[in-house]
Amino acid sequence: MKALYIKKGRLSFRKDYPEPKLKADEALVKVNLAGICSTDLELVKGYANFEGIPGHEFVGEVVKVKNSKDKKLIGRRVVSNINLGCGECEYCNVGIKEHCLNGKALGIIKKDGIFAEYVSLPVANIYTLTESVTDRQAVFVEPLAAALRISEVVKIPLKGKVAVLGPGRLGILISQVLSLTGVRLTLLGRIKESLNLPKKLGLGVGLIQDFKDKTFDLIVDATGSEGGLTNALRLIKPLGTIVVKSTYQGEVKLNFSKLVVDEITIIGSRCGPFLPAIELLAAGKIRTEELIEAEYPLKEGIKAFEHAARPGVKKILLKFL
Amino acid sequence: MKALYIKKGRLSFRKDYPEPKLKADEALVKVNLAGICSTDLELVKGYANFEGIPGHEFVGEVVKVKNSKDKKLIGRRVVSNINLGCGECEYCNVGIKEHCLNGKALGIIKKDGIFAEYVSLPVANIYTLTESVTDRQAVFVEPLAAALRISEVVKIPLKGKVAVLGPGRLGILISQVLSLTGVRLTLLGRIKESLNLPKKLGLGVGLIQDFKDKTFDLIVDATGSEGGLTNALRLIKPLGTIVVKSTYQGEVKLNFSKLVVDEITIIGSRCGPFLPAIELLAAGKIRTEELIEAEYPLKEGIKAFEHAARPGVKKILLKFL
Repeated sequence: MKALYIKKGRLSFRKDYPEPKLKADEALVKVNLAGICSTDLELVKGYANFEGIPGHEFVGEVVKVKNSKDKKLIGRRVVSNINLGCGECEYCNVGIKEHCLNGKALGIIKKDGIFAEYVSLPVANIYTLTESVTDRQAVFVEPLAAALRISEVVKIPLKGKVAVLGPGRLGILISQVLSLTGVRLTLLGRIKESLNLPKKLGLGVGLIQDFKDKTFDLIVDATGSEGGLTNALRLIKPLGTIVVKSTYQGEVKLNFSKLVVDEITIIGSRCGPFLPAIELLAAGKIRTEELIEAEYPLKEGIKAFEHAARPGVKKILLKFL
Repeated sequence: MKALYIKKGRLSFRKDYPEPKLKADEALVKVNLAGICSTDLELVKGYANFEGIPGHEFVGEVVKVKNSKDKKLIGRRVVSNINLGCGECEYCNVGIKEHCLNGKALGIIKKDGIFAEYVSLPVANIYTLTESVTDRQAVFVEPLAAALRISEVVKIPLKGKVAVLGPGRLGILISQVLSLTGVRLTLLGRIKESLNLPKKLGLGVGLIQDFKDKTFDLIVDATGSEGGLTNALRLIKPLGTIVVKSTYQGEVKLNFSKLVVDEITIIGSRCGPFLPAIELLAAGKIRTEELIEAEYPLKEGIKAFEHAARPGVKKILLKFL
């Protein structure tokens, strides 16, 4: 089958990659449409030392199952949780496969991803879609779930001041999701032009440099860059909380005494719940169409990755049909 | 009066420093006994750009008050909260003077400290002591309160694994305090000899390098050094919490993707409640005598600071009588 492939930080297009073999409790999914995520770009830079097929944001159709009890899935449009638990560790035992100690992650850790014609997936990871969610919406289920995770890890200060740093794709999804809680928030960027799209979507926006120190009670850092946490530490109020949302290859410097003296909380947040994400998309509560920049066919995947890496670019999709 | 004095990162002994003048709602306190804290050592290195009299761990006697309603304090032995609120900002308004936006901190920020014969203090900051707490115990009220703060900022996982990093004075106080919650904890150091004292005090101890990755649910970093957070990030389990306890001059490097992927919480923690600290000392629940290394007279303060800066040294006291 055709697939994109990463080896030693180099992306290539393969015409003859072997089709995945199904294990028990797995389904074979034909990929329809996929999104390129910042994590995919980091993988090409060497993040997680990944070798294999990248990609984890997608919608596809089940074409084959291993167990007869799963036959009803055939022909269904589906998305998939990206975390494959071992089923045996202390985290899997309590249903948190996101933190499986032997964890595999679709297209990120020890498991081929979805920038390929076919992918094998545990049936337990699959969520079926109704017609009310289009393919172009469905590719946003995974990042939208990640945005929803924030409400699971911190309390939302509805009377306080909340900022999201980074007016990129993830920052805009997060801002839309948090706005649904009723909180007043400001999506902050460093460049005026970067605020045009979120402003068009009705979000409150501002320039980071216009805000004084210790302004916000809760800050979500969706910049994916070293400067994000530095700005967040400047803008956060005493006793405030900073949620770090984007994986980033490398180390950041942290002002230790500021953290302690102002008793700041920094909390990492990653994958989130799929069902609420699907529901919100089906109900039309989240705008995604404006977040799409372009579609490329799979065979032009390398060009698509280059496009996705340009600063300020919106979501780049890979189309398989 | 005699006092120790810091200017541009240089400590000196002054014989003729002017006695403090009392403002309304203040008391004049004659210092009896004081402790040198790691923060004092950092001040000499330039932390907080402090100029003035350092010192904030002490016990003294009230000798004068400004308002007649405070006369009952005269002759009483006291300790004092180190944070002087402005009384007007949003934090002072809700009783959190520890985070006053115009905050002064005794011997740390814009306020002369207690390495002097006399100090002026707001009556609101003062706690009186009964005979059941000795002077040599009372100098530990402030660091013990800071140790108690941990239970206010995080939930204690009584069924989980807890570690305290750094078997120094603060680490030992924290370990004693946390042990009172019923949790099983291990106080970790890098050098075997550093574990002798905590072991003698009945605390569970271990060498950092003997523990494998992702072992602990809660880690308190009381190392006061850059390596502490690095070790904590290695040892913490997914969804775990790291409490950073010691102020430290400079920046530390943080592995960004580990924080996010494992959804770690890092929380800074500083000053704590005085009354419970006094109660625990009065009840004999916390051992402090073993934590004292030596006493110096005030005029030998520079020598005392040098002694306090030696690696592995216990608490150095300054005696005023």
